[in-house]
Amino acid sequence: MTTRVAVMGSGNWGTAFSMILADAGCTVTMWARRPEVADAVNAGCNEAYLPELRLPPAVRATVDAAEALQGADIVVLAVPSQTLRDNLVRWGGSIPGGAPVVSLLKGVELGTTMRMSQVIAQAAGVEAERIVVVSGPNLAHEIALRQPAGGVVACRDMATAELVAAACATPWFRPYTDTDVIGAEVCGATKNVVALASGMAEGLGFGDNTKATIITRGLAETTRLGLALGADPQTFMGLAGVGDLIATCMSPLSRNHSFGVRLGRGLTVAEATAELRTTTEGVKSCESIFTLAQQHDVDMPICEQVVAVIRDGHPAREVGPRLMSRDLKAEKR
Amino acid sequence: MTTRVAVMGSGNWGTAFSMILADAGCTVTMWARRPEVADAVNAGCNEAYLPELRLPPAVRATVDAAEALQGADIVVLAVPSQTLRDNLVRWGGSIPGGAPVVSLLKGVELGTTMRMSQVIAQAAGVEAERIVVVSGPNLAHEIALRQPAGGVVACRDMATAELVAAACATPWFRPYTDTDVIGAEVCGATKNVVALASGMAEGLGFGDNTKATIITRGLAETTRLGLALGADPQTFMGLAGVGDLIATCMSPLSRNHSFGVRLGRGLTVAEATAELRTTTEGVKSCESIFTLAQQHDVDMPICEQVVAVIRDGHPAREVGPRLMSRDLKAEKR
Repeated sequence: MTTRVAVMGSGNWGTAFSMILADAGCTVTMWARRPEVADAVNAGCNEAYLPELRLPPAVRATVDAAEALQGADIVVLAVPSQTLRDNLVRWGGSIPGGAPVVSLLKGVELGTTMRMSQVIAQAAGVEAERIVVVSGPNLAHEIALRQPAGGVVACRDMATAELVAAACATPWFRPYTDTDVIGAEVCGATKNVVALASGMAEGLGFGDNTKATIITRGLAETTRLGLALGADPQTFMGLAGVGDLIATCMSPLSRNHSFGVRLGRGLTVAEATAELRTTTEGVKSCESIFTLAQQHDVDMPICEQVVAVIRDGHPAREVGPRLMSRDLKAEKR
Repeated sequence: MTTRVAVMGSGNWGTAFSMILADAGCTVTMWARRPEVADAVNAGCNEAYLPELRLPPAVRATVDAAEALQGADIVVLAVPSQTLRDNLVRWGGSIPGGAPVVSLLKGVELGTTMRMSQVIAQAAGVEAERIVVVSGPNLAHEIALRQPAGGVVACRDMATAELVAAACATPWFRPYTDTDVIGAEVCGATKNVVALASGMAEGLGFGDNTKATIITRGLAETTRLGLALGADPQTFMGLAGVGDLIATCMSPLSRNHSFGVRLGRGLTVAEATAELRTTTEGVKSCESIFTLAQQHDVDMPICEQVVAVIRDGHPAREVGPRLMSRDLKAEKR
């Protein structure tokens, strides 16, 4: 029997993931907030977010959340992180009991510093055994071209992870199952902060040694935070960790990276926001992540310097010397 | 008292590392095989290998190995991997007893599948407590520009690692100490094979999702090999692991990556060798590494496909579908 999936949200990753699901044999109903987006999807192309992709006929859209959720075997959440709680409260009663609830979201909730799975559990009363996180090196615009990529499908319950993995496996997208939800989420949140730092280095004129060093040391501090929150250290070596960090920190398609490049060139946060006509997840959440680190007594020097630039307006060119002049130490702690 | 270092070899990494040592306050005597290279270094620039770098006056060169080694506090080995054994046999008696012997070499010895530290121990009778490996995201041409970078200095004896780290710490090069020599060496050898695969993906037209996926899964199979040989799994998350993989797999300055790009575009090994006027370490050693993996019953699907292309002449375009069509599985094994 065909698996029916509700994809709640119609941005570029929600749209690209809908296409993965359709290619894997599912029928997909996307929920879009705006009628013009739903109409565009039903006409075969989400012009506003992923204009290069001709959507398969198995993907349809509606502006009626209850209609999208009705009878869904799997629910995929793809709304902006900071709107998740309000949306869940609004939909709460319509999420089918027993259906796996998949988070595509990256970030922590401002104010509460909660991970998205915690928000899902709290605001919609979903049990941990059916909360699933999908993460990995999955730039939407490359997914839209059906370029080969892998991803992690994590759920505390492995059978649920396997069910969701089967629903999104295609000849060009390869999901790997895992049980570490916390690790996948910590990676997804902090990668945007590391991408800002890596972008700053590029904007300052530095090359791949510097960026690779920032990514690696960023991974080390992400891992320290994850361990403090109960994650499995191995997760950080995987597609949700290293894999997504590489794609997010190296690609010109990454908005956080592009924002960092502009800071590195000497623009202020306001100037970079104006030039890119948007702010980014890392700009919004770096301070929350640093707060979370402080609450758990975790040393995150790269995150700390990103906060100094983003919140306190320090010039990006001062960051490098501060990081390089710390006492010499062992790599593993 | 000034630390005296003998750097045995005058290629681009030996030259760049000599500059690091000089910046850190050491006096350096490089050994060059060819008189014209020694003359160029003594004139202040190794034109043939690193023409963009004006060498500091503390770096001198000689063609007399015994003269370079005489009275050295630290010996750095920077000759081509496959010439190491013969060179060590030739110099054996001249290496000062008690001096740390630092390997900058990446690769395994053809025929024996020995790591470079094993060759050093066997051919020159150096004790494990003074064999040091330096590795990390250190593209020589970016080091020559003094761009910020980190590296790992690994020795079974932490005090020796700390001594060598102190000798190469500068405001722009940050060494981290470690004790896992095996892990650092396994990373250094296999990264070239993963870079060939990542280059092939780029040559086939794929972007950062695909390359990040290859790097991450390449890291997973490198880690499996390392564990079988007795390495510490954490090493693979560090600068010698992830860090060097990123630099080697993403940079146009990496020869293995460039060679892979040509294979991805459909060139044969012979055609790529002709176009680049050189072969690369990964081309030479992929089969040895795969043999080593088979001897230890380690699954290395990416390495296996690189061997299929390099040794057996399979087209690079056939590699992706073979890797993507394997059974779905858990990320961690």
